[in-house]
Amino acid sequence: METPTEVSRTKAFGCAITQYAYTSPALGGTKATFSVITPPPEAGGAGAPLPALYWLSGLTCTDQNFITKAGAAAHAAAARLIIVAPDTSPRGAGAPGEEDGWDFGTGAGFYVDAVTPGFGAYQMETYVTVELPAAVAAAVAARGEVALDGARRSVAGHSMGGHGALTLALRHPGLYASASAFSPVAHPTACPWGVKAFTGYLGGDAAAAAGWATHDATELMAARGKPLYPSTPIRVEQGAADGFWADGQLRGDEFVDACKAAGQLVEWHLREGYDHSYHFIATFLGEHVALHAAALAAAAEKKGGD
Amino acid sequence: METPTEVSRTKAFGCAITQYAYTSPALGGTKATFSVITPPPEAGGAGAPLPALYWLSGLTCTDQNFITKAGAAAHAAAARLIIVAPDTSPRGAGAPGEEDGWDFGTGAGFYVDAVTPGFGAYQMETYVTVELPAAVAAAVAARGEVALDGARRSVAGHSMGGHGALTLALRHPGLYASASAFSPVAHPTACPWGVKAFTGYLGGDAAAAAGWATHDATELMAARGKPLYPSTPIRVEQGAADGFWADGQLRGDEFVDACKAAGQLVEWHLREGYDHSYHFIATFLGEHVALHAAALAAAAEKKGGD
Repeated sequence: METPTEVSRTKAFGCAITQYAYTSPALGGTKATFSVITPPPEAGGAGAPLPALYWLSGLTCTDQNFITKAGAAAHAAAARLIIVAPDTSPRGAGAPGEEDGWDFGTGAGFYVDAVTPGFGAYQMETYVTVELPAAVAAAVAARGEVALDGARRSVAGHSMGGHGALTLALRHPGLYASASAFSPVAHPTACPWGVKAFTGYLGGDAAAAAGWATHDATELMAARGKPLYPSTPIRVEQGAADGFWADGQLRGDEFVDACKAAGQLVEWHLREGYDHSYHFIATFLGEHVALHAAALAAAAEKKGGD
Repeated sequence: METPTEVSRTKAFGCAITQYAYTSPALGGTKATFSVITPPPEAGGAGAPLPALYWLSGLTCTDQNFITKAGAAAHAAAARLIIVAPDTSPRGAGAPGEEDGWDFGTGAGFYVDAVTPGFGAYQMETYVTVELPAAVAAAVAARGEVALDGARRSVAGHSMGGHGALTLALRHPGLYASASAFSPVAHPTACPWGVKAFTGYLGGDAAAAAGWATHDATELMAARGKPLYPSTPIRVEQGAADGFWADGQLRGDEFVDACKAAGQLVEWHLREGYDHSYHFIATFLGEHVALHAAALAAAAEKKGGD
């Protein structure tokens, strides 16, 4: 894999915000773009290796929505962690119908590895869990300003990206030290967005649909039947004035119920007056970052004690 | 003037963010859009009347750039002040050439009252200083959640809006309790953006050009020759990695020199690595809001003592 090249670089709250692009094997040779927020270097060198929080965005987003609207750099600086924001799908893959709607195809990869004909470039699960971390490691090393601890990762996301955060954490135990979500599509097999996406990416026949549950956070937690994180809560934030919540697309409460039934610590915050926008995310992001920072610090201690 | 109607409403950091629209007499009967950030009501009623900070945005912006990217609600909540974000020009006025470039006409009103033929709708100075405050007062009163103290106002802005903040404060002594600017077009008669805008709005002949200095912050401060705010600094923030700064469009240092010569307290912050973007604004906005909140609090005490 080629080392990502810098597309742009800016500064916020002392952090560098760098946008990168490279040709992605996982995404069928399309150009993949992602952004990385790195805290300021410590005086005298790169300092201790820093963990990374992966942020997965929602439908229609690129890497830039979170970067420009969430105020994340202030929290990355305070917690001294790296934040990685990937795109939400391959771009220009040429898959059938990928430009026909805003909730499927381009900008709507749903963080699964597609198996349907023509969707060979839609391998977002492999991209986020395997290829992107390698790309981030290469990019951060090439800069040399801070050091990355590639073994310590957490994951969070919004809406479709909340689905991504919860399912990738549940499908890859041990990969992430913690997971949280804003307004997640938390029970996709039971909502229109999920059914449309899973039909398109995973197949709609009975045999394929039987596998849908393995990409559904609520079903995964129910099937697991025991905690994923015994000592760290999974935090779920939901705006009570969110139209998609009212429409039944999100269903975070059903995931929370599954967590409780499985003995997983969970924090459920239904926020009066807040909607589906980045205003909502920006308001509570600092508390989520602090939760991940604590879990990642505990992971460092555990690793150190081995 | 009609009472503005609500276009949208969202919530951030406990504040309401409401976008309004109305038919603006000052702007030639075009539809004017603005946004207002109001802190949460106090328990038991609207509470003490709150002052307002007017934020003037830069070239190409609508009211939404600041609202979505600056993280302002957190500071409005902390300081308990109202923040008002107007658009940067009339829209659809039909003035000659208003859609031909991004630095003149639509999205580029430069906060002056135009006198050139066909630009009767471009009365941004009257709009911001007279009509908009009345529209805000009507809108806030109609909501009834918080009370507005219409007599206490401060002004800040970015780039073209930094020019607007500094010139409107200097042209209307006593109207604003304090003024500050990010990356201001601080000496417009000496930069390409300013010359183009002033030629188009104020006229390019010798007699008209003689009046340009009365819309130029550096020239206004030099002509004034004494402090505008005897006990409050005018704060100017500039990114050292800002391409427009390198190109000589901004010239905040020349305004700062004029302040010093006039005995005006001034804070000049040239920030290494920061560019012209809202990342830069978000990083330092909290410090600007705190400055304005202190000046507005002092204005309340002075008023109370009269």
